[in-house]
Amino acid sequence: MSGWVKIAGLGPGNEALVTPEVTAALTEATDVVGYIPYVARIAEREGLTLHASDNRVEIDRSQHALQMAAEGKRVVVVSSGDPGVFAMAAAVFEALENGPNTWRDVQIEVLPGITAMLAASARAGAPLGHDFCAINLSDNLKPWSLIEKRLRLTAQADFAMAFYNPRSKSRPEGFVKTLEILREECEPERLILFARAVSRADEALRISTLAEATPDMADMQTVVIVGSSLTRMIERDGPPIVYTPRFTPAKDQV
Amino acid sequence: MSGWVKIAGLGPGNEALVTPEVTAALTEATDVVGYIPYVARIAEREGLTLHASDNRVEIDRSQHALQMAAEGKRVVVVSSGDPGVFAMAAAVFEALENGPNTWRDVQIEVLPGITAMLAASARAGAPLGHDFCAINLSDNLKPWSLIEKRLRLTAQADFAMAFYNPRSKSRPEGFVKTLEILREECEPERLILFARAVSRADEALRISTLAEATPDMADMQTVVIVGSSLTRMIERDGPPIVYTPRFTPAKDQV
Repeated sequence: MSGWVKIAGLGPGNEALVTPEVTAALTEATDVVGYIPYVARIAEREGLTLHASDNRVEIDRSQHALQMAAEGKRVVVVSSGDPGVFAMAAAVFEALENGPNTWRDVQIEVLPGITAMLAASARAGAPLGHDFCAINLSDNLKPWSLIEKRLRLTAQADFAMAFYNPRSKSRPEGFVKTLEILREECEPERLILFARAVSRADEALRISTLAEATPDMADMQTVVIVGSSLTRMIERDGPPIVYTPRFTPAKDQV
Repeated sequence: MSGWVKIAGLGPGNEALVTPEVTAALTEATDVVGYIPYVARIAEREGLTLHASDNRVEIDRSQHALQMAAEGKRVVVVSSGDPGVFAMAAAVFEALENGPNTWRDVQIEVLPGITAMLAASARAGAPLGHDFCAINLSDNLKPWSLIEKRLRLTAQADFAMAFYNPRSKSRPEGFVKTLEILREECEPERLILFARAVSRADEALRISTLAEATPDMADMQTVVIVGSSLTRMIERDGPPIVYTPRFTPAKDQV
């Protein structure tokens, strides 16, 4: 059996951000599985079968990929961004752990990609230039109380923060609460960035402060970055630059 | 003036992890500046001047890049990994903010790359598959007390953690203290990964627990990843897989 699964990160959307490693894996694949808009990025060719599926069926999709690989197929599971950051890699390993023993011998590799927060950070300057946290704000798979606890401790530790899945139609209240918690923990001037569809045609970057941010600035296509207390803005012709310095003076300790 | 600065991430070491965007920037450059081992990765060609400099001169290097761009050169500042994660982007913006006004109009772009923790996470499985923090353990530019505070709050929030610059010859004690703090805050079975030189010929990945980890498992080439309380290991033929599930049951809240 020469089958394998490669869980590949397609990056934030622009083809210039797809690594050669991922491109090579797609060239060798017999099957590609993934969420509909990500599979739509893969060029059709003879010998390649595309299996697009809807959101929220990550485990079904993972089982399908593992089963095909166990039968000898070369399967690429596509994620946007990096597959290891709030994406398909954990789902495939959940399916593997709970699946039949025959799947354990399947060759599996994770191919990293440019995750959304790092594409967003690059576009804005370097807001994640020092210690930071990445938090998934969806409470579909964890209790809201844990999200709130993490937000408060992260703010108290004066990390910069990147939020994935900040807001969806089915969860309009979470990001409202997030802004309320951050306003309790941080000063009103704290910088907050809303980076939507970075590297794609409809890219939009908005710089605000906690005092002025409103929940509607975020949607499911947005990564939100909150600065640390030291995050600064450089004004210039054109869009300002937002960055977090490398140096923390002793007096600025939180 | 058609000069520019592009601050480019070369990824963890393997050329298959360099994005096409970065490769294209290097093709257009007149000058490349960076730390000696990163500049050594750039192929020489006619019309390209390589400026390699030693570690710890990040601001000098940034000033040099900005000045050359202000004079019309096309300058790529190379970082390993992602330039926005404990790398050159913040240094260039510090130099810009404190530099002459003529630098403010220079076109500057950050080109993201595969940062070390995501390459390491991919190799191990998906240990950063849920909420996580990235912490630079060097106290060269921040007080140790702030590092300790961040470690304790991060552990209390039950994040997975990635540590950059865990240990150097001039700072042998920091990682000793880090392990002591983590042993106070976390259970002894907590998984800890030492990922050295990921994607390079001398790559080494070691999986341990907080109870068994020793300081000498890390050096300056190592990214250390500590799991959350939910991070798990799947045993199989060949190296085990370490991953953090997406689902946190309400009873497992910290």
